Amino acid sequence: MPNAVVLLSGGLDSTTTAARAAADGFTVYALSVDYGQRHRVELERAAAVAKALKVADHRTVTLDLRAIGGSALTADVAVPKDRTDDAIGHGVPVTYVPARNTILLGLALGYAETVGAFDLFIGANVLDYSGYPDCRPEFLSGFETLANLATKAGADGTGQFRVHAPLLKMTKAEIVREGMALGVDFSLTLSCYDPDAAGGACGRCDSCQLRRKGFAEAGVPDPTAYQSAAG
Amino acid sequence: MPNAVVLLSGGLDSTTTAARAAADGFTVYALSVDYGQRHRVELERAAAVAKALKVADHRTVTLDLRAIGGSALTADVAVPKDRTDDAIGHGVPVTYVPARNTILLGLALGYAETVGAFDLFIGANVLDYSGYPDCRPEFLSGFETLANLATKAGADGTGQFRVHAPLLKMTKAEIVREGMALGVDFSLTLSCYDPDAAGGACGRCDSCQLRRKGFAEAGVPDPTAYQSAAG
Repeated sequence: MPNAVVLLSGGLDSTTTAARAAADGFTVYALSVDYGQRHRVELERAAAVAKALKVADHRTVTLDLRAIGGSALTADVAVPKDRTDDAIGHGVPVTYVPARNTILLGLALGYAETVGAFDLFIGANVLDYSGYPDCRPEFLSGFETLANLATKAGADGTGQFRVHAPLLKMTKAEIVREGMALGVDFSLTLSCYDPDAAGGACGRCDSCQLRRKGFAEAGVPDPTAYQSAAG
Repeated sequence: MPNAVVLLSGGLDSTTTAARAAADGFTVYALSVDYGQRHRVELERAAAVAKALKVADHRTVTLDLRAIGGSALTADVAVPKDRTDDAIGHGVPVTYVPARNTILLGLALGYAETVGAFDLFIGANVLDYSGYPDCRPEFLSGFETLANLATKAGADGTGQFRVHAPLLKMTKAEIVREGMALGVDFSLTLSCYDPDAAGGACGRCDSCQLRRKGFAEAGVPDPTAYQSAAG
């Protein structure tokens, strides 16, 4: 089976993406990035998900982006709560990490070179995050082009890199259904931008709201552990 | 003056590149990456160079690539010494860091977004490092294209990113002469792949050999502090 590198945050989207890669016949090498995010408990969930999915290997690269700041996920900027549906997913939110997917796919490319993989999987989604330019299909195909220019295998034609974003045009409800069909245990996943130390979700940030709505619209019981106040 | 982000390792090439950016009228924001390299003293040299060049700011991002291994610069692989001229600069050397320039430019792009810069400078060179696919002009222009797809300013046309590699086609002797003309203090710079703790250069790795030859061919006294055994 060909190898694939899957960017795995431990959230609902990346976990479903990893399950899709495995179901498509790839041997999965999972890569997590400790990028100085607020929600460090996410990394523990990524490890739990990687174990549940029986991936071939799971590595975590430390990348402290706080030195360049610029995001509510990495700097001392408040995570917005209780935003309305109209506000969520429009404009570039304060939780945007500068050049995030360029950096993440660059790291995935580096890991792919070391494990002999040509397939990179990312849980990018264009519907829920229309304000993120680096979730657009043209960005993803641009990275694919770059990967083939950046690497020996791409340059000499012995291998062609592909970027897979199987959730790109799915609604959150469709992603939930896809994950259920693939046997994903969503109780292991964490999507909250501002969880407590035990991994309890706040239920009020954009990510929590999208996730909660996804389960509701999919008609699937929400297995998320919310903070007591977030009931 | 427009802002520019310059990738600064503290070596001869990146220091000359930073001096070039300043001479071209850019306000320089220098970015160094602590990527688990053997030669940590390089980071101290980067700080000294940044100070000497009076940059507007100098940030160091920590990125531990050892988790994905794959290079003599980041893993437990010996740095080759005393290679012949024929061997140096041909094929992909063991000092190649997987996807290095993709990752470095990605970080530079993130920093550029936070400081409002559209110009990224990198000391890539195609002559000395013909075995590195990510030093080729087509890679650099590919990254430029990607940067404009990846960012809000690029996507909505309010700004266009440019990747500058002013040393791309220079020989090492030409780079030395360029640096001298720009007033660079090369005694602050360190190019060695395997320096001692005090920053003494080994004089025998590919990078030391290229650097030494550069000074000789430029007819400029070599200010490098070599390890005593490397005389």
